[in-house]
Amino acid sequence: MWLLKETEFNLKNAKAYEGLFTQGSGYLHVRGSLEEHLSDCPQNAAPLRRPANVTAESFPETKAKWGTYVPGIYGPHPFLNWELINLPWFLGIAIFADGEKLDMELSQVRDYSRELCLRTATLRRELTWQTKLGKVIKVSFERFASAARPHLFLQRVRFQALQETTVVVYSGIDANVLTNGHDHFRCVSFDRVGDNGVGCTVDTDGGDTVRIESRISADGVRWDWKESERKAELCAELCLSAEEQFVLEKRTAVTTSRDLCPTTCCEVLDSVAGLTYEELHREHAAVWEERWERSDVQIEGDDNSQLALRCSIYHLLRAHVPSDPRVAIDAKGYAGEAYFGRFFWDTEMYLLPFYLYTDPERARTLVEFRIHTLPGAKENAANYGYSGAKYPWEADRDGHDSCPNWQYADHEIHVTADVVYAFAHFAAATGDRSFLSGAAAEAIVETARYWLQRVDWRKQDTYPSILGVMGPDEYSPITNNNSYTNRMVKFALNLAAEVGSYGGASEEECAEFRLVSQLLPILRREDGLVLQCEEFESLAEPRFEELWKDRSKTFAAQVSQERLYRSKCLKQADVLMMMMLFPEDFTPDEVRKAWDYYLPYTTHDSSLSAGVHAIVASSLGLKDEAWEFWKKASGLDLDVEHGGAAEGIHIANAGASWQVVVMGFAGMSTALNSDTLVLRPRLPESWKSLSFQIVWKGVPVRIEITRDHCSVTNCGQQGLDFAVWNNKSYASPGEKVTVSLNEPNSCEERQ
Amino acid sequence: MWLLKETEFNLKNAKAYEGLFTQGSGYLHVRGSLEEHLSDCPQNAAPLRRPANVTAESFPETKAKWGTYVPGIYGPHPFLNWELINLPWFLGIAIFADGEKLDMELSQVRDYSRELCLRTATLRRELTWQTKLGKVIKVSFERFASAARPHLFLQRVRFQALQETTVVVYSGIDANVLTNGHDHFRCVSFDRVGDNGVGCTVDTDGGDTVRIESRISADGVRWDWKESERKAELCAELCLSAEEQFVLEKRTAVTTSRDLCPTTCCEVLDSVAGLTYEELHREHAAVWEERWERSDVQIEGDDNSQLALRCSIYHLLRAHVPSDPRVAIDAKGYAGEAYFGRFFWDTEMYLLPFYLYTDPERARTLVEFRIHTLPGAKENAANYGYSGAKYPWEADRDGHDSCPNWQYADHEIHVTADVVYAFAHFAAATGDRSFLSGAAAEAIVETARYWLQRVDWRKQDTYPSILGVMGPDEYSPITNNNSYTNRMVKFALNLAAEVGSYGGASEEECAEFRLVSQLLPILRREDGLVLQCEEFESLAEPRFEELWKDRSKTFAAQVSQERLYRSKCLKQADVLMMMMLFPEDFTPDEVRKAWDYYLPYTTHDSSLSAGVHAIVASSLGLKDEAWEFWKKASGLDLDVEHGGAAEGIHIANAGASWQVVVMGFAGMSTALNSDTLVLRPRLPESWKSLSFQIVWKGVPVRIEITRDHCSVTNCGQQGLDFAVWNNKSYASPGEKVTVSLNEPNSCEERQ
Repeated sequence: MWLLKETEFNLKNAKAYEGLFTQGSGYLHVRGSLEEHLSDCPQNAAPLRRPANVTAESFPETKAKWGTYVPGIYGPHPFLNWELINLPWFLGIAIFADGEKLDMELSQVRDYSRELCLRTATLRRELTWQTKLGKVIKVSFERFASAARPHLFLQRVRFQALQETTVVVYSGIDANVLTNGHDHFRCVSFDRVGDNGVGCTVDTDGGDTVRIESRISADGVRWDWKESERKAELCAELCLSAEEQFVLEKRTAVTTSRDLCPTTCCEVLDSVAGLTYEELHREHAAVWEERWERSDVQIEGDDNSQLALRCSIYHLLRAHVPSDPRVAIDAKGYAGEAYFGRFFWDTEMYLLPFYLYTDPERARTLVEFRIHTLPGAKENAANYGYSGAKYPWEADRDGHDSCPNWQYADHEIHVTADVVYAFAHFAAATGDRSFLSGAAAEAIVETARYWLQRVDWRKQDTYPSILGVMGPDEYSPITNNNSYTNRMVKFALNLAAEVGSYGGASEEECAEFRLVSQLLPILRREDGLVLQCEEFESLAEPRFEELWKDRSKTFAAQVSQERLYRSKCLKQADVLMMMMLFPEDFTPDEVRKAWDYYLPYTTHDSSLSAGVHAIVASSLGLKDEAWEFWKKASGLDLDVEHGGAAEGIHIANAGASWQVVVMGFAGMSTALNSDTLVLRPRLPESWKSLSFQIVWKGVPVRIEITRDHCSVTNCGQQGLDFAVWNNKSYASPGEKVTVSLNEPNSCEERQ
Repeated sequence: MWLLKETEFNLKNAKAYEGLFTQGSGYLHVRGSLEEHLSDCPQNAAPLRRPANVTAESFPETKAKWGTYVPGIYGPHPFLNWELINLPWFLGIAIFADGEKLDMELSQVRDYSRELCLRTATLRRELTWQTKLGKVIKVSFERFASAARPHLFLQRVRFQALQETTVVVYSGIDANVLTNGHDHFRCVSFDRVGDNGVGCTVDTDGGDTVRIESRISADGVRWDWKESERKAELCAELCLSAEEQFVLEKRTAVTTSRDLCPTTCCEVLDSVAGLTYEELHREHAAVWEERWERSDVQIEGDDNSQLALRCSIYHLLRAHVPSDPRVAIDAKGYAGEAYFGRFFWDTEMYLLPFYLYTDPERARTLVEFRIHTLPGAKENAANYGYSGAKYPWEADRDGHDSCPNWQYADHEIHVTADVVYAFAHFAAATGDRSFLSGAAAEAIVETARYWLQRVDWRKQDTYPSILGVMGPDEYSPITNNNSYTNRMVKFALNLAAEVGSYGGASEEECAEFRLVSQLLPILRREDGLVLQCEEFESLAEPRFEELWKDRSKTFAAQVSQERLYRSKCLKQADVLMMMMLFPEDFTPDEVRKAWDYYLPYTTHDSSLSAGVHAIVASSLGLKDEAWEFWKKASGLDLDVEHGGAAEGIHIANAGASWQVVVMGFAGMSTALNSDTLVLRPRLPESWKSLSFQIVWKGVPVRIEITRDHCSVTNCGQQGLDFAVWNNKSYASPGEKVTVSLNEPNSCEERQ
């Protein structure tokens, strides 16, 4: 199950596949747009996008949406602050036969298939095109973003005509591209490189220069040059004799003035001049093969889950920018513009675990991003009149808050504690405690200083409070003592008390960190229910039956924000998310009580909701619920009928999907919650087996779970203590230990 | 005390005087800008103004700000929705001598004085100008917006040179004007009218056409024509012989395609061609004389208060648009752009009473505005998914909510009840009950229908609640059961229950109106304190000492909105305002308790705060506090050092100032709170006497209050029952009844 397939072209799903089929090298990302594009679908259409609640926002109806992104290339948008820039589009290859343009919408096309091979990150499309004058031409496209050479993108087109046919091809670079309606290109210039090359240099309003260079090769072809203000392309006639196969290749290099290891497009392209497409694809596929060895998860008995999970992992592997701590993974996985290419708490809470347990070095660049942007976080705090550091709700590349909506930027402050939680998670999972006393120490102390200023001691209380916050549930915008936020801050302040001295905190400060950490309340109702916030019970009933008619759309899209803000309607897990992260704090009964209370109020309008609910359901032994939420999470971007990844990959949900399988169905405790590896497997009914590899505190471990056994293979050099349910066990280096899942004591615990 | 004087020109106060000296006919309003303008002060400067909290907003530093407004002429601003358009500027008269331009900043000027005569609404300026080449010229300017002919504006300039001097004059119309940074002029064209006329026709982006025509006359002068894209003017040389007085006159007419009684500038100007400046000024002054007879308030013993109050009354008389129910009085009294020329609850709660008790027919157009915009209010409700009518927080001319900040537009909903309260106040004060069962009935029912949808019945409660609202205190944005809002809604629903049948409400509906009206709670603390809202006591202490360093600036300008929103810091009276409006509901002890509790938390960042506090203080017998708040309210726009009216007149505060004197110091109960006229005088220490005229249910009454007597003169045709404190009395038509203020029983009640 490695192939994501589109078996017939359907215009209304075009944008969704475009996002789903996004390819990337980490350095460069390109949406899965059709080489020949579609008619009447300009990519430079205004109007400017305005600030809005994305959950309720409707996007312009366009047939297709190009996307060419280099992480870190940002520019200022007049309404939306700094955003990831959609760069000039270099995929274009337009094909004419008998003066007719190949057009998936207008041409007579049969035998259509498009597939993304997840294993090799290669996109292929095949079709047979019959022109209006009766010519029949088989066309196949193939392309990949070289994982071996991150600046390099390769495309190959094969033609085969039944009858002798003259085909005219246009291919070049098109800078008629706006980002959320704004033109970020200060200056665009084109140059012809040799006979068959097109170069494009763009100065952005973000102060960067981007160079894109394409070289097109096809045997015995003379290229003509066509240039307009924002577009340049080469044009040639290909004479196809009957049945002969004709191959065209386009090699594109992208570099920017911001590159960590500066090179030029020319160098990149020259360096591979001697290598064939096949050779370049082989080295590319080899890199992916190695990635999959580390991170693949095999599911037997459920092909849909297998494919969906691999799709998530594919995008997680693609979207990560190796060894560049100046950027993280944006909310749409560099596959769309919906969240402006910004970095949210998604990074820490939803994405980080996958990397932490499959490729710790990749995880490091994510935590380093927050350390790198500490200066921005300090400025954010200063903007509010606080000392210390406040991490932004929507971080741009400088760590400034680019969120254009004050209710999130001002009040959704838990991200600042989430960042510190992630530091600790990194240290625990990698076993690198020195990270906390070293690189992370200053950020831990500065954020703690912010918290000391942000808490209020109310006259009538004996404890500090965090007032006026938005928790993960963004439908309660300004609440007091949100449990999730308070618990995260307790964690962050406690850590600051422990390692503060390394970050320049005085003993007195550390004592204050500890005191506030201890006294911040987690509110409960008389009957013990953990409350989302002080005000939750005074909100209105949401009256879903009456007001939420169309369940295929979000609740937010069907009622006013004013109603959202006064009603008991959760956008996503809030208390339950806290309970998932701090399992030691709550008994199963308490979790179950919260589940029963909050679930009926939860809209799951956020794509961050299903995964967390699946994990909690699984931990509660609610198999059916866990299964339903798993299907919802894993299927989200594959559901092209409902938009899927049209505006970009729900990358946090992809990370959550991996967590559902590993922390949920395999029941692995995180390194923050357990010193030794602990598994509590609960496979879905249909799954025969589940196997994957993780790195536990430096030890690579292979885990295989069947319906009645769980085996742990120590692939590392030192011994490994572990437990399956409450069976403690040990695996020596190289040893595979198998534990039965049917022993009474484990069964007990499962009740 | 009729003269507002500026005795020396000070650049830093120029904008404040410009606003303070605004003149208008109701139909047309013009800021008090200098005819010759100032150097380096373009009025078409971007950038576009963005949505912001006006209390904390800082405005562009310009030396001067032109303002030419015709109520009802609105256009769409790209960020701020529909706004009053600042029209082309026709006041300009530039004067050159010896090639030197008269410039208040750069020229050598002495004997400067500028004064606005409030009695005749005439602005005069005199100065002696010595040119660098030594010529000495006395220049005096005079101008007025004809109250007798609302389309007509007159200017006169007198020159007198010690030595023979050639003066060059430029005068015309300048359309280089933006409104809040936006150009509303789709098309501007100029035409020369006869020899000495300049015409300007503007098509606005609001769909209106505005015509401005100026005719300039000066004996024996030849005019040259100068025209550029956005400006046209006439230019002439005036040869002044020594000591001779030379007079130049400029008559300008303004008409628009939106006029209720269409006319043309040409007609307007031709119709007065035979009349001299003096004759036109006489008829103008006569209208003002008649206005003052109805509405003047005389204060003996305190010239500052006298002048300040007359200044407020002047702007109240000026800003009102006679007999045009399509507009009301905007938040800056048509004297600036700060609130975009929109209509707030200010209209009903702060402005209406002045007109109700001095000129009921003017009051009628204000309530009719809300009836006229009922369709807009229905659309506003529909936008939120409600039936019925929701009046907008910031009404444009169509009654749509043009407020660009969601927290006000969505949550500050009390305005919808305030409108109904004003309907009732109008009916009670005029004695015209048929208004409620007639013209206002539909609006009363439709708003009541909105309220039925807007209330929530929470599971745990036996009463309905209004959740998620912002009360008059805008620093608590989303609260439950705000007392002011609930009380107003109780009033509105109760009225709807009474007259609903006339507005098409069924008996069942009326019963529901009554039920919700009865059950809506006014929350109290155990100790009886009336709570502003459910959450008030869980807010943070504001820590003013520490955070509010500069008391000359608002608190909001010195802390983040995030802190405002989580702290006990009132922007203005909230509970106290409710208590002022519903005195029968609360004992003096309850009011005093609320005063003592809320006052220390109140920032008075809003100009709506001081007046209400003065009235409540006076009713509590807190003379010193009443006096301080009176000084703050009455002096606000006169305080040019602190900006004063730079961005426009605080017209609601002007209305509140009148109420402080009449409802506060004279202690008059409103017609809603008492069937008969009741006075409870409490003059400030320094006041020897206070006298004014009101209309009580159709009966004109003259009231004179001295330190020991209060006399009531019935100037009407029917008898008048009244009371001074608890001395009931009666005045027959024409009779003047004097009551001593030193009788024991009254003294008692004053304790």
